[in-house]
Amino acid sequence: MDQFKIIQIQKSIYSSNDEAAEKVRSDMKETNTFLLNLMSSPGSGKTTTLLQTIKLLKHKFRLCVLEADIDSDVDAKKIAAAGVKTIQLHTGGMCHLDAKLTKQGLDEVGTEDIDIAVLENVGNLVCPASFDTGAVKNAMILSVPEGDDKPLKYPKMFKMCDALIVNKIDTISVFDFDMDALKERVLKLNPNIKIFPISAKTGEGVEAWAAWLAEMADETIKG
Amino acid sequence: MDQFKIIQIQKSIYSSNDEAAEKVRSDMKETNTFLLNLMSSPGSGKTTTLLQTIKLLKHKFRLCVLEADIDSDVDAKKIAAAGVKTIQLHTGGMCHLDAKLTKQGLDEVGTEDIDIAVLENVGNLVCPASFDTGAVKNAMILSVPEGDDKPLKYPKMFKMCDALIVNKIDTISVFDFDMDALKERVLKLNPNIKIFPISAKTGEGVEAWAAWLAEMADETIKG
Repeated sequence: MDQFKIIQIQKSIYSSNDEAAEKVRSDMKETNTFLLNLMSSPGSGKTTTLLQTIKLLKHKFRLCVLEADIDSDVDAKKIAAAGVKTIQLHTGGMCHLDAKLTKQGLDEVGTEDIDIAVLENVGNLVCPASFDTGAVKNAMILSVPEGDDKPLKYPKMFKMCDALIVNKIDTISVFDFDMDALKERVLKLNPNIKIFPISAKTGEGVEAWAAWLAEMADETIKG
Repeated sequence: MDQFKIIQIQKSIYSSNDEAAEKVRSDMKETNTFLLNLMSSPGSGKTTTLLQTIKLLKHKFRLCVLEADIDSDVDAKKIAAAGVKTIQLHTGGMCHLDAKLTKQGLDEVGTEDIDIAVLENVGNLVCPASFDTGAVKNAMILSVPEGDDKPLKYPKMFKMCDALIVNKIDTISVFDFDMDALKERVLKLNPNIKIFPISAKTGEGVEAWAAWLAEMADETIKG
């Protein structure tokens, strides 16, 4: 396939989302592909974080990115420019990706030669928390300007994630953001979540996040 | 009613959202109440902006706020502390408010002695753009850290709004944010939208926004 492609999402043959999610998981097991579902609010830095992550991992893993965007391709073009296979999923008005749509994207990209596939979900802290995409791991980004009270308001999202990236820590002095309070709130909802404070802009902290992702991917690929 | 109250949203007797929206509009006309629907991403500063707006308008208008929150009451408590009638709408997992839910909240608060009712919608740039709440005017907040490219990604929201508040302009030097590019993108989608750059933190620009809101409210109340 081309490095960059746009597909329109169509109707699926799967009757339930859970059925499609199981199919995605078994397909990915067959091709030894680790699928990560990455979620966040609009503007929290998903694409910039991915670009930094790609820089650290692309020499070890064969990567691809599925970009969910309602109506544009700005993010997909940036990822493709980093030399990584990219599929743009135009969701129309949809506020989340489900497993059926994920499967369409993965089928289109073809995962036989892919180690890590990243699903960049629609920018939304609500709806994506209710849909299993078939990913092996779920991660979210919260950026410092959004505030340390977000776990109180969007608990479902914080509960379902295996990892939380706290982005834009280079701006922490500008905002009234209490990292300890955030951690306490998050861990109360989800004691097993891994928390990675980073600045996708400066690169600070990205290595620890990328190392975790590599470890999770290795487990899947070698398992 | 009490200054602060939590209600759980229940089933409605209205068959369609449009029907309920018309009912909200006719009810509000009857009590001479101006209803504003305020939308944004999580963490863009809806509550802080409202607190600043209340400060400027509460001596001229009788205000109330309907706070949509999935599962907390932190915002509603802050608004109530500012001396304004507040209803907390617990939406459960819902990602937006529709007209049926809005009507429940307005019925509960009672609008006979209210000039301006503000609906603080769920933090989400996608779903609320698809539901008429019955409001006379729709406004949204975009905060500087979210980026100037958001009109490209969430066009429906920018198209449906009468006013755009660009919040956190005190942090513009920290972020790579181009106000002219933003304005150009927004006006291309929606040439009639009013744009108000503000800092809810410092109060900068809030007067112009509050003056517009007062003018719109006066038109409804006196009309």
